[in-house]
Amino acid sequence: MRSLAFGTQLTLTYRQRERERELCIQILVLVSAMAENEESLSSNTAGKPIRCRAAVGRKAGEPLVIEEVIVAPPNPYEVRIRIICTSLCHSDITFWKLKDPPGYFPRIFGHESVGAVESIGENVDEVMEGDIVIPSFLADCGDCIDCKSKKSNLCSKFPFEVSPWMHRDKTSRFTDLKGETLYHFLYVSSFSEYTVVDVAHVTKIDPAIPPNRACLLSCGVSTGVGAAWRTADVEAGSTVAIFGLGAIGLAVAEGARMCGATRIIGVDVNPDKFETGKTFGVTDFVNSATCTDKRLSEVINEMSGGGADYCFECVGLASLVHEAYACCRKGWGKTIVLGVDKPGAHLSLNSFEVLHSGKILTGSLFGGLKAKYDIPILAKRYMDKELQLDEFVTHEMSFEDINKAFDLLLEGKCLRCMGGYKSWIGLD
Amino acid sequence: MRSLAFGTQLTLTYRQRERERELCIQILVLVSAMAENEESLSSNTAGKPIRCRAAVGRKAGEPLVIEEVIVAPPNPYEVRIRIICTSLCHSDITFWKLKDPPGYFPRIFGHESVGAVESIGENVDEVMEGDIVIPSFLADCGDCIDCKSKKSNLCSKFPFEVSPWMHRDKTSRFTDLKGETLYHFLYVSSFSEYTVVDVAHVTKIDPAIPPNRACLLSCGVSTGVGAAWRTADVEAGSTVAIFGLGAIGLAVAEGARMCGATRIIGVDVNPDKFETGKTFGVTDFVNSATCTDKRLSEVINEMSGGGADYCFECVGLASLVHEAYACCRKGWGKTIVLGVDKPGAHLSLNSFEVLHSGKILTGSLFGGLKAKYDIPILAKRYMDKELQLDEFVTHEMSFEDINKAFDLLLEGKCLRCMGGYKSWIGLD
Repeated sequence: MRSLAFGTQLTLTYRQRERERELCIQILVLVSAMAENEESLSSNTAGKPIRCRAAVGRKAGEPLVIEEVIVAPPNPYEVRIRIICTSLCHSDITFWKLKDPPGYFPRIFGHESVGAVESIGENVDEVMEGDIVIPSFLADCGDCIDCKSKKSNLCSKFPFEVSPWMHRDKTSRFTDLKGETLYHFLYVSSFSEYTVVDVAHVTKIDPAIPPNRACLLSCGVSTGVGAAWRTADVEAGSTVAIFGLGAIGLAVAEGARMCGATRIIGVDVNPDKFETGKTFGVTDFVNSATCTDKRLSEVINEMSGGGADYCFECVGLASLVHEAYACCRKGWGKTIVLGVDKPGAHLSLNSFEVLHSGKILTGSLFGGLKAKYDIPILAKRYMDKELQLDEFVTHEMSFEDINKAFDLLLEGKCLRCMGGYKSWIGLD
Repeated sequence: MRSLAFGTQLTLTYRQRERERELCIQILVLVSAMAENEESLSSNTAGKPIRCRAAVGRKAGEPLVIEEVIVAPPNPYEVRIRIICTSLCHSDITFWKLKDPPGYFPRIFGHESVGAVESIGENVDEVMEGDIVIPSFLADCGDCIDCKSKKSNLCSKFPFEVSPWMHRDKTSRFTDLKGETLYHFLYVSSFSEYTVVDVAHVTKIDPAIPPNRACLLSCGVSTGVGAAWRTADVEAGSTVAIFGLGAIGLAVAEGARMCGATRIIGVDVNPDKFETGKTFGVTDFVNSATCTDKRLSEVINEMSGGGADYCFECVGLASLVHEAYACCRKGWGKTIVLGVDKPGAHLSLNSFEVLHSGKILTGSLFGGLKAKYDIPILAKRYMDKELQLDEFVTHEMSFEDINKAFDLLLEGKCLRCMGGYKSWIGLD
């Protein structure tokens, strides 16, 4: 089965993507309430199929259908989770639009979320019923050479691909009321009141962190913060340039700020982003749309006196990677690719410059984070008020309104909108 | 003035270069004897022009002319050096063939050498008359942000370019007997009994190391060893793949061996190189000429169980960089570019792979070494028998025979040839 990059923007034009990227930060969707003195559901439901609501993608590009589905009990090494909060990401949109593989229908989308463990399968000992957990699209089995190494976050046992199945046995835990199989998405499928996730994809977190903040650590914000913190290992006092101030770019800024970068240059076509960026530590803004006399890299080289120590490309355009590489500091500059370009896109670097500049080019999937080790650290930093999360949320809405969230993302109408953790109705 | 990459192979065809690369290791040329109880020449010559012999490139591609030249006294911050030993490098050949800038004639080539300080200009306090020194093409001023940083070896004060002049005042210290200016080469111009070098390009070494070994630390061997040691920082127990087992590639192997790599895969089109490679720690050999059923990277991926931890491209072909990148280990693999490709050549990397693989691409000029700090360390390691240098030398010959050395390099007839330090006549 052919699989494709997570988040690959197959069907969107650049202009559409730009528009979405520019105007949205994060839309959270409330799936189920977080009851204060919640009794364990597990005694009633463990080992049995659960009938619950899910937002099912029935056809590519068509509104999700909120319907009842059957969620099978977890197999060995699996965890059934009651989703509390989920959020929308462009990758959901991208694959929702895809008619052909790796687009599959009917499918339950959603991959950024937080939930409570309802029940566990055999051989699961790291979480138990009632634990608050964050599912993540990237596995962390803890056993393979990559998971054991400090240098990699790319689990070899469960390598990432955009599969429509559970990881171990390539089957689904979802059926509709007619008995038809519903496909999984990125091993999470969080647009459902209940889902089943392999334990390798589940991280237990401190339940004190509000779910509408914890949710952000499941994918996007972790990716950006991690890229600065883990992949680039930004040094205090350094200069950072960020190409694209969408949610990922802003999260990179937040990560760089947290690491002590003193100058954070934000690049975007939308000058409104600068004000938003300031919240996350952006100190300088370059409007790439107005760079007509000079190359963008020249502007940044001049501003920074020879280039930024770290450049992050968060849009997914080869030409921007080239600009980033061109304005990262000779001798030690790192260019980190975060943006997902179209399939088959190539980065073209001048061989002379690669040899003579000492610059480093690398990419970052999930910000180089090891989910089970790093997500709890980020959660603690949020609780310690070192990491900002509140500021990323622009919208909250209820599960019933999930199609409106899709519309908002597609139409680029997102505005900032915050909600308290008890009262929120569908966050970001 | 247009300048070009050091070592850029402008006029040689790939086949010619392959042939040279395959068959030669290192040719040393004895320029002047190392007198045991040498009296200082300086008392007679300091402050005065010196008339001595040099091998002058009069016309592109034509034999060097051994003639008398005038070497001016050193200006402030400069050192006049009596060259003891120099060696030939392909970069000499490349620029000797170049009719147009950065090819300049008449010119004194040579950039890999060792010598004794004859006299010093004003403001020079780090070396004195009689010191044994290694000139290097890459400056190490010690003052600029790069030289002060641990992360860079690319001096900002005296950035590298293929200039025909001294670094500070863009003039020459050489004239012929008719008074015509002779151009410098790579700030060293060691094909002369005396030369003037900026103190930023001069490293004092322990005089105990034989000059026909010290000479190797001036460029090629340092570049290869440094690439493994400093740029890649090869970890003990790791797997290394080296593309091209010429002098640089073998030096990479030696550096990797010294760092404790347990598996060193050498790739070359000439199977004879494997025997040579074994001396420098190569444990496995892949004949790329016989890889017809599979891509070279597939063969290495299979051999290494998922890729090498470090891949070094030492030929200068974009296609080989692509293979190196394709078989460096996901998650942490580093591909280091050492080979000099033709001007304008581009490396093309799949954007998806850059993002998803976590691999690192970088280049290495002079092996990432800081000359003044690292060359003495390498010299000590040689004296402590940790670093092999003797095995790199294939030919020794006298200064008068320098054109034969050019012929040997061009014809690919180099054979191994060693000589004692007192008796040697033109090494390598």
